[in-house]
Amino acid sequence: MDKESLSIVKIGGNIVDNPEALELFLADFHHLKGRKLLIHGGGVLASRMAAQLGIETKMEQGRRITDAETLKLVTMVYAGWINKNIVAALQKIGCNAIGLSGADGNAIPALRRSPIPVDYGYVGDPDPKKVNADFLSQLIESGITPVFCAITHDGNGSLLNTNADTIAYSLATALSGKYETSLYYCFEKEGVLKDVNDPQSMIPSMDRAESEAYKKQGIIADGMIPKLDNSFRAIENGVKEVIILHARNLLSKRGTILVKNQYLSDII
Amino acid sequence: MDKESLSIVKIGGNIVDNPEALELFLADFHHLKGRKLLIHGGGVLASRMAAQLGIETKMEQGRRITDAETLKLVTMVYAGWINKNIVAALQKIGCNAIGLSGADGNAIPALRRSPIPVDYGYVGDPDPKKVNADFLSQLIESGITPVFCAITHDGNGSLLNTNADTIAYSLATALSGKYETSLYYCFEKEGVLKDVNDPQSMIPSMDRAESEAYKKQGIIADGMIPKLDNSFRAIENGVKEVIILHARNLLSKRGTILVKNQYLSDII
Repeated sequence: MDKESLSIVKIGGNIVDNPEALELFLADFHHLKGRKLLIHGGGVLASRMAAQLGIETKMEQGRRITDAETLKLVTMVYAGWINKNIVAALQKIGCNAIGLSGADGNAIPALRRSPIPVDYGYVGDPDPKKVNADFLSQLIESGITPVFCAITHDGNGSLLNTNADTIAYSLATALSGKYETSLYYCFEKEGVLKDVNDPQSMIPSMDRAESEAYKKQGIIADGMIPKLDNSFRAIENGVKEVIILHARNLLSKRGTILVKNQYLSDII
Repeated sequence: MDKESLSIVKIGGNIVDNPEALELFLADFHHLKGRKLLIHGGGVLASRMAAQLGIETKMEQGRRITDAETLKLVTMVYAGWINKNIVAALQKIGCNAIGLSGADGNAIPALRRSPIPVDYGYVGDPDPKKVNADFLSQLIESGITPVFCAITHDGNGSLLNTNADTIAYSLATALSGKYETSLYYCFEKEGVLKDVNDPQSMIPSMDRAESEAYKKQGIIADGMIPKLDNSFRAIENGVKEVIILHARNLLSKRGTILVKNQYLSDII
């Protein structure tokens, strides 16, 4: 029997931080047909709240260093304020959402990252093989839309701050055993751009070899690097398609499509 | 067919705020046999965090006034930090918990309280008839233990701060259609005390008439009044038993037992 389709959508912190953009996005998300699941960021709001509380935001290679105080802060902001507001907003428009962290239902067990070479503190990397896919598909099959924040746990009582793109990759990969999964990374740009200041320079499709070439040229840099790594890992591990796109283009799916092999896909 | 038993346990903010007491309590909760559900407070931690953020805590008749800033704060503290830490701690000891607010799965729709005579702000009162008992029993029957924070929603996009005792009453009442429910209000005293400074003065059992008499004498006052009102409403609406007890006595169930009618229960 053919697998059912599942859309896994990741929405970045800049959209989450803009109430009007978020409302428009959630309406589009609600209009996505079929089974779906949302992952949200929230780093912008967390940084602002950190400043308000006098907690210094330490970054290393585009990633937050999470000491005990920062873990408390991001858990409050991601799992509390942002997650529950998104759930309430989705409920308002008739989408039966449930907000989850990776600790809930043991949905996403993670391993605290090794302190060598960089000690990121309470930061975890999930193992897609350990994602509780049965629990999630049970929710999805009863008509519920899971909404994940970027907090996981180590199974030993500790919460862990986790990259939201990586959570999206892990969920998409784990659920591709049960569903034909499509992964959408939504953010505030048209897709992967050759020139970051020119929306017209969007690259329509890309395979891993091309992405490596762009990296060498410095065209792909910063936060886009882990996003693309996650994307290629996803399509190499059973995810049907990955698209990087502007949040306002979710329904049209216009953005950069990542493909397994550009040459093969041209022939087919 | 006989209904299955369900234990609904409410744990107060003073225990939640004490890591050692909380750990002991969660171990006991895990050892409670059968189906169960937890509701936690968190007012103490919220007040401390409010002070840290320079947000003034306004109280009226033992209840917090919830302006927009306070709603954000309590959502962060209750639904974020406390809820996810309790879930992670339960997962650690093998209890498959899931953390929920009333917005998740539309579990507990609530009505924003009328601003007359006192405007409590973003405060909601749940209607037990609207609790999504099917969703909750579906979770419970698949071996999951729901853990509720005291945040609900109005179905129109707004989160609402809600008294945790009232949530416990609403859940116990709503679920008594499907289960034989017992409701345990756990806090840091032995039960209802005749003399608040003497643990030996615990009243072993009480009906509504006796409770009213104690109120008139000033023996029952402050936060105990709504707790008892919720308790008697619960047993008058199908809940099998309500016990008010010290958190450390959860397994022995030693505390003040609320009964429908003391005279009748003496005869039976």
